Amino acid sequence: MSLAEAEAGASTAVDVATEMAAIGEAARTAARRLAYATTKEKNAALRAMAKAIREKSEAILAENALDVADARETGAAVSFIDRLTLDPKRVEAMAAGIDEIAALPDPVGTVLAEWDRPNGLHIERVRTPLGVIGIIYESRPNVTADAGALCLKAGNAAILRGGSDSFRSSHAIHGCLVEGLEAAGLPQEAIQIVPTRDRTAVGHMLAGLRGCIDVLVPRGGKSLVARVQQEARVPVFAHLEGVCHVYVDRAADLEMAKKIVVNAKMRRTGICGAAETLLVDRTVAATHLKPLIVALKEAGCLVRGDEESRAVVPGVTPAAEVDWSTEYLDAIIAVKLVDGIKEAIDHIERYGSHHTDAIVTNDQAAANRFLARVDSAIVLHNASTQFADGGEFGMGAEIGIATGKMHARGPVGVEQLTSFKYRVRGSGQIRP
Amino acid sequence: MSLAEAEAGASTAVDVATEMAAIGEAARTAARRLAYATTKEKNAALRAMAKAIREKSEAILAENALDVADARETGAAVSFIDRLTLDPKRVEAMAAGIDEIAALPDPVGTVLAEWDRPNGLHIERVRTPLGVIGIIYESRPNVTADAGALCLKAGNAAILRGGSDSFRSSHAIHGCLVEGLEAAGLPQEAIQIVPTRDRTAVGHMLAGLRGCIDVLVPRGGKSLVARVQQEARVPVFAHLEGVCHVYVDRAADLEMAKKIVVNAKMRRTGICGAAETLLVDRTVAATHLKPLIVALKEAGCLVRGDEESRAVVPGVTPAAEVDWSTEYLDAIIAVKLVDGIKEAIDHIERYGSHHTDAIVTNDQAAANRFLARVDSAIVLHNASTQFADGGEFGMGAEIGIATGKMHARGPVGVEQLTSFKYRVRGSGQIRP
Repeated sequence: MSLAEAEAGASTAVDVATEMAAIGEAARTAARRLAYATTKEKNAALRAMAKAIREKSEAILAENALDVADARETGAAVSFIDRLTLDPKRVEAMAAGIDEIAALPDPVGTVLAEWDRPNGLHIERVRTPLGVIGIIYESRPNVTADAGALCLKAGNAAILRGGSDSFRSSHAIHGCLVEGLEAAGLPQEAIQIVPTRDRTAVGHMLAGLRGCIDVLVPRGGKSLVARVQQEARVPVFAHLEGVCHVYVDRAADLEMAKKIVVNAKMRRTGICGAAETLLVDRTVAATHLKPLIVALKEAGCLVRGDEESRAVVPGVTPAAEVDWSTEYLDAIIAVKLVDGIKEAIDHIERYGSHHTDAIVTNDQAAANRFLARVDSAIVLHNASTQFADGGEFGMGAEIGIATGKMHARGPVGVEQLTSFKYRVRGSGQIRP
Repeated sequence: MSLAEAEAGASTAVDVATEMAAIGEAARTAARRLAYATTKEKNAALRAMAKAIREKSEAILAENALDVADARETGAAVSFIDRLTLDPKRVEAMAAGIDEIAALPDPVGTVLAEWDRPNGLHIERVRTPLGVIGIIYESRPNVTADAGALCLKAGNAAILRGGSDSFRSSHAIHGCLVEGLEAAGLPQEAIQIVPTRDRTAVGHMLAGLRGCIDVLVPRGGKSLVARVQQEARVPVFAHLEGVCHVYVDRAADLEMAKKIVVNAKMRRTGICGAAETLLVDRTVAATHLKPLIVALKEAGCLVRGDEESRAVVPGVTPAAEVDWSTEYLDAIIAVKLVDGIKEAIDHIERYGSHHTDAIVTNDQAAANRFLARVDSAIVLHNASTQFADGGEFGMGAEIGIATGKMHARGPVGVEQLTSFKYRVRGSGQIRP
């Protein structure tokens, strides 16, 4: 590198640092205003955003076409291009998603608990916004709209950093969000998008923008989430992966088990709630294992089994140690016979990702034990792991699913994007 | 440093690393067992701990005497020696504190919310333990008992790291806790104490013991808390300081204001909820300021005022810029006239620590505005800031007060030491 190049690089790094710091400060200021924005103001902004997206649909698609053309030129994968590409239907879905968020109840101001003290003090625990949320996402332009709208509904300022391949699309969508904020008289810094493709911007966000970011939400593949989880100096709402299990107990109804296992694995194989491992109680190996494997194979699934299950059902591919901790996100499942519920729980603890795990059984005591002892964000009895979804939980839109135990766990919807404070009302009380 | 010394140091560092990693693993294993410990088991352990502390009172006092003698020899401050010193009354208070924790309701298993979905799924959000809690504290041996007992009640494993000056006292108390765990058939690794005075142990805890610590709680002075907040790679429940304000509004009753201001500042000056700054609405400077300052002075408080308040009340010491952000923890208060509630809120946002702030007013609208817009863990109307305390809130014992917005905010009691999960019960539902 020449001196001139080095100087140019240094200068750019300083510029980005300055720019990101200013974004952080502006977000903090906007968050103070949003904290007491009324439901009416926030919903007016959201509806105006949806309107702007519909009105500017053509402009958004034009910008998106440029992004897609660039991506094709660099030889991006088909799946990548698919996620990046917008069409009129996808643009309308974004607008409709924002309208749905407008229709959700406003979590801010909800009294979570209240009680009186013997001295007459009335104490309330009341929901407040979290503050400033940073969202780091890959080249799915729709996340711009979803995440920005969800953060606003919960009274939070958002700093969006989308994949550089969707730079133009995300900026066009962001313009519509800002239009909506302005229409409702809310500060346009309530939803900011990082205005540079420079990758060092992400590093500044991971460092928390000098205390201006309260929480980070990564949206994307495992390598992005891993980097954010490892490097972030602020709390992160995320799941690294979903190594989800279905355990078929000795007291399982075989028909129900077949239906649940096939759905949990095959309904959509690419989502985090898809099952990756099937555990079957050794006691029912003779009766249940083969029909389960046949059902999976008939549904188009490749089955990898441990030695014992391969002895029961010949023709199954051997599973290696690594299979037990692999998130295939594909039509592949690992199958293992276990010594009842205890070994099933131990296996899930050892190899699972604390995301979503299910038991199929007609034994209520076994179900209760599984639900109590499996330490995952979501535990299910006699239902498919594919229900791991904020919408399916009735929470409305979600920004993702968290597997950490702090603050948010499971689907992260508007309620999970809030904090709380204590509001105490007295009549002159002093502490003796 | 000689090579031999360097090698000895390196060897010790490796030993401590190995030892700390083993402690982390053991805590994780114990936490899995504690997660389904019954209320009866946990309470039996707690009562047996209290009993052991009472029975071993003399032995604890003997170990404490050795710690105190060493501390005196090193010339420790009187206040330090006071916090370190146990006597029969303080030992009994520790035992009684554990009995009180035993009497609290068990938070684990509480259903926080439940609902049915149209497809028949029944969803519950249920409290679970957090996992493993690391407590790093200074030389107050009683924290060993308080923190260990609170963590256990919430089903968490604890790793305790007390100040090295209280090493013997803390270990003697810890012995009683382990006795209680064993008496109840719970794993003794449920409450571990770091067995070395080596300071590098703290660094390992801050790094999270390879994913084995879920949250850290520092208990001690500002420099300890600052270090933990800056260096921890896991979430921290803490407050760095309590720069608490009382704002006397134009619509304040003067007698009530005097009573509240004097109590908020002077009841106990060394606690985090003590007021450090008095803000008075300029509109009532002529009527309210002098009586407030006189009342404070009569109570023995040194008053530092801004230029404007010094013009109204001659003889007040001048306040410098640094006073507005100083936590005196002493009989000193900073006084400032403000242009009504807006400037009061702006001042608190700029200089405060988001801990506890109060307004005195008979104007309900002003009170509501203050309570809504001041972004602190606890906001009070017509009551003393010294109520910032888990016991005063009716939560029972607390492990501290948190000013962060994630997970726990305000007093951290047993409920705040829990997480939650979703328990879903179905009858064979699959996702369409």
